[in-house]
Amino acid sequence: MRLSRFSLHTTKETPADAEIVSHQLMLRAGMIRRLAAGLYTWTPLGLRVLRRVEAIVREEMNAAGALELLMPAVQPAELWQESGRWDAMGPLMLRMQDRHEREYCFGPTHEEVITDLVRRDVRSYRQLPINLYQIQTKFRDEIRPRFGVMRAREFLMKDAYSFHMDAADLQREYDNMRAAYCRIFERLGLEYRVVAADPGDIGGSKSEEFHVLANSGEDELAVSDTGSYAANVEAAALPAPAVERPAPQSERAVVDTPGITTIDGLCQALSIPAEKTMKSVVVDGADGDPVLLLLRGDHQLNPIKAERLPAVAAPLAFADEAVIRRHFGAGPGSLGPVGADVRVIADHGVAALADFVTGANEDGRHLTGVNWGRDLPEPEFADLRNAMAGDPSPDGQGTLTLVRGIEVGHIFQLGRKYSESMQLKVLDEDGRDITPEMGCYGIGVSRIVGGAIEQCHDDNGILWPDAIAPFTLLICPIKADKSQRVRDAAGALYEACRSAGVNVALDDRGLRPGPMFADADLIGVPHRIVVGERGLDAGTLEYKARSADNATEIPHDMDAVLKAIGHART
Amino acid sequence: MRLSRFSLHTTKETPADAEIVSHQLMLRAGMIRRLAAGLYTWTPLGLRVLRRVEAIVREEMNAAGALELLMPAVQPAELWQESGRWDAMGPLMLRMQDRHEREYCFGPTHEEVITDLVRRDVRSYRQLPINLYQIQTKFRDEIRPRFGVMRAREFLMKDAYSFHMDAADLQREYDNMRAAYCRIFERLGLEYRVVAADPGDIGGSKSEEFHVLANSGEDELAVSDTGSYAANVEAAALPAPAVERPAPQSERAVVDTPGITTIDGLCQALSIPAEKTMKSVVVDGADGDPVLLLLRGDHQLNPIKAERLPAVAAPLAFADEAVIRRHFGAGPGSLGPVGADVRVIADHGVAALADFVTGANEDGRHLTGVNWGRDLPEPEFADLRNAMAGDPSPDGQGTLTLVRGIEVGHIFQLGRKYSESMQLKVLDEDGRDITPEMGCYGIGVSRIVGGAIEQCHDDNGILWPDAIAPFTLLICPIKADKSQRVRDAAGALYEACRSAGVNVALDDRGLRPGPMFADADLIGVPHRIVVGERGLDAGTLEYKARSADNATEIPHDMDAVLKAIGHART
Repeated sequence: MRLSRFSLHTTKETPADAEIVSHQLMLRAGMIRRLAAGLYTWTPLGLRVLRRVEAIVREEMNAAGALELLMPAVQPAELWQESGRWDAMGPLMLRMQDRHEREYCFGPTHEEVITDLVRRDVRSYRQLPINLYQIQTKFRDEIRPRFGVMRAREFLMKDAYSFHMDAADLQREYDNMRAAYCRIFERLGLEYRVVAADPGDIGGSKSEEFHVLANSGEDELAVSDTGSYAANVEAAALPAPAVERPAPQSERAVVDTPGITTIDGLCQALSIPAEKTMKSVVVDGADGDPVLLLLRGDHQLNPIKAERLPAVAAPLAFADEAVIRRHFGAGPGSLGPVGADVRVIADHGVAALADFVTGANEDGRHLTGVNWGRDLPEPEFADLRNAMAGDPSPDGQGTLTLVRGIEVGHIFQLGRKYSESMQLKVLDEDGRDITPEMGCYGIGVSRIVGGAIEQCHDDNGILWPDAIAPFTLLICPIKADKSQRVRDAAGALYEACRSAGVNVALDDRGLRPGPMFADADLIGVPHRIVVGERGLDAGTLEYKARSADNATEIPHDMDAVLKAIGHART
Repeated sequence: MRLSRFSLHTTKETPADAEIVSHQLMLRAGMIRRLAAGLYTWTPLGLRVLRRVEAIVREEMNAAGALELLMPAVQPAELWQESGRWDAMGPLMLRMQDRHEREYCFGPTHEEVITDLVRRDVRSYRQLPINLYQIQTKFRDEIRPRFGVMRAREFLMKDAYSFHMDAADLQREYDNMRAAYCRIFERLGLEYRVVAADPGDIGGSKSEEFHVLANSGEDELAVSDTGSYAANVEAAALPAPAVERPAPQSERAVVDTPGITTIDGLCQALSIPAEKTMKSVVVDGADGDPVLLLLRGDHQLNPIKAERLPAVAAPLAFADEAVIRRHFGAGPGSLGPVGADVRVIADHGVAALADFVTGANEDGRHLTGVNWGRDLPEPEFADLRNAMAGDPSPDGQGTLTLVRGIEVGHIFQLGRKYSESMQLKVLDEDGRDITPEMGCYGIGVSRIVGGAIEQCHDDNGILWPDAIAPFTLLICPIKADKSQRVRDAAGALYEACRSAGVNVALDDRGLRPGPMFADADLIGVPHRIVVGERGLDAGTLEYKARSADNATEIPHDMDAVLKAIGHART
């Protein structure tokens, strides 16, 4: 591509409304343009990257035996009513009526449509297993679309759906897809993790997420230092630790803690570590009465785990202060389990505490030296908290560290959730009706582009992995306007690279070196070759990898160029 | 592709609701599946064809210098209000509100979005010309979606938009796109015509349509026998013929024609040819009063031409019978210009009539021997009718014949319609604000698939052109279940073809020859090779082109196979 004929619009200014680096760099490099909240046009530059990601995803899905199809974006309400999700999806689903006032949505996902397709065309076990996928535009009406393509409303997704005669065959295909996803992220050239996940609203049993690692990632991942365990913090199950509770040493006492309502404040006032304190969280119970959840002072409540407790109302809701005062006689900040007139559920981390500090259920007062059994009954115990760095790994091997990730893939064993509600039936070898097992496998194709930038950038711009760069090589002629020789040499090199199958661009826009190199760094082309008078005299070219600090001289011949950029002749 | 692992669902039955052959065959071959009215899933088989069409379109657009981007499907109302089309589009546009009750549409086209993009990024003449295109999903809420993918509501379109400093540069790019389109349709292997067209609602001056020829086509095309002229019948301008009007021969007389209200009935009753009669059509006038349009009895009114007359109301509406009776004193079937109390506009074809027959403006009566000038004043003349076979070609060379076509492409010179209404301005070399000229260029990618089938089929199924066939070659082993030797030979041939880059399928489903060949014919694979015991004994394979009546024997070696299917080794 000659950049003089390419629509490149870069800017130096960081757009005010872009909060994260990938959104900023995609706007500055001119990869996307905002049309409305959460709606972006992919410019020619941006689309080149998106298409390369898409191509890798498609090749690996095909190689794994999945079959590509294409389902409509607009879906009739009836199918969603059948599965029970028309109401459940709420305002996340963009709804519309056609000219005959029939109801439709812009599909946020396609479980219903694919199940309907399969129940009409598949009748016999001979036609299973099958894995069908598409790369298609979805819409989710996010409350607060932001972060550019990372949380856009309209986005490009690869969604695959598999159907099986039994759970063992589903497990086989799930493993097949897991392996295909690993190949995809390896080929993309991104550092990633597969972590155990919560299946969430989509339903089903087992699910795992694929995360691109980046410090800015929205998700926290707990990874064992032995590499044997990885889970989204929200899904990391923490079994009861095998720690003995020490015997009580102190007497229970009341201390005045006027104005202190936080763990930090309490620790400072009493000169104790947070590990000796207890956090009291009051939530609505399933039966209408409040429930007191207890955590160690340095632990964080995991709302998903809490919501899953039968005693707790779903969705999780914190109790009103009026309700709290009625049951505890005090407000948040001074609450505790001693004498509380509610059901008490404590995190396992609380079980090992002795002589601990907790709210006295009197405003401005706490209790010290509290002990289970002696001062109050043993509570129910449950897994209620997020994993922390230093926790023993749930698989018993090593300890956990925390890293941040961006979710770009999610694979699910759905089981029979959709095949049952939509009455998909297939005859088995003995002529009996079987309700097939389903799996589904998603990749956020457009989100990967943002995730790659979050992982791969520096102060000057993007550092694309070779596999998804808009151009592999950028040729920059110096003072070409004044030198026919430079123009000719750069043009000849450009044509030779094209012939060799290199994804090459020539910056023939006539810019001065400063702005030309700044653009090259900003748009993140992995390899740059400078053609100038001095090099032509010496028979050399100046090569610089985007990731390297300095340029090097290479001989002015194609073999040297191809070697420098790591390109095998096609 | 091994068909045992491919999701192929063919049926013998012709679906009841499919009116045209492409819709029937696409359903029978299992290329598409209906989700709701005008909404279709492209199955793996159908998508293979769609993607091949898409790839050819993309390659030629890129080769012509256009740059691909991707705009959102969902578009904010504000842009359409700016261009004035939010109301004008009416119920054809699918509208919706997001969770914040902001209005959007599912884009039926993208003039507004692209103009908005360009006005934000393009400031200088140095950035023009530019031609940006996308291959993207559109939605048009047709009153009566039908004919499968030919008139679907959701469909895949290639839409390109170009911007220019002046009309001459627009003309240059228009010619460039016209040539690219010709290459596209030639590569697709379809018989097509480029015809002059009416720009219609999209606006602008010049436009041409690309039609795939097929007897079932919705559009009638007028083509000169010299090949120098071609236009959509509705757009074929017919100049006043240079024919002298004969002198009157007969006296005017009143004849009773009870119950006769059609031209056919009148010709039969009076034993005269339709060319001696006159058709009277009363439409609403622009000023509220009715207007009488006159045509020769054998000519057809062209509503688009009529609507374009300043005296006629747009959109064209036929006058109510009450209004007609008030102005004419008679009802439709007995109307005529003699003594009519309305404005009269006659088609040029009427100008040469003498001694003609027309309604008497009395129910059940006609006038014979009527003559312009003598019996009534000369009317205004205009071009009001459709072209007919045998008409002189408007370019003065030869005569017209009529063929039928399916519109699959449309190129427009939009001029400044959108750049003006949306205030796109660019600085010229002298620093003055210029409102750029625009062109737009559309191809109905999904419609081409249906159009190709309308043109290329026989009683047994589809006959794909090689360029867009789902598979180029189908290998059919005979009685493979009983012969390891046949299985091995078919498998080896399949692998050899794959290695040679042939788009090959192996029918390893274990069907008997009859159903296997029926499927091969139905899905339209252009080349078929049968592997059987007898051939293996003789060292031969049985080759049959889908379009040929009979099979031939070819030597059992790869060179012979590749030669038979016309495949150059890759």
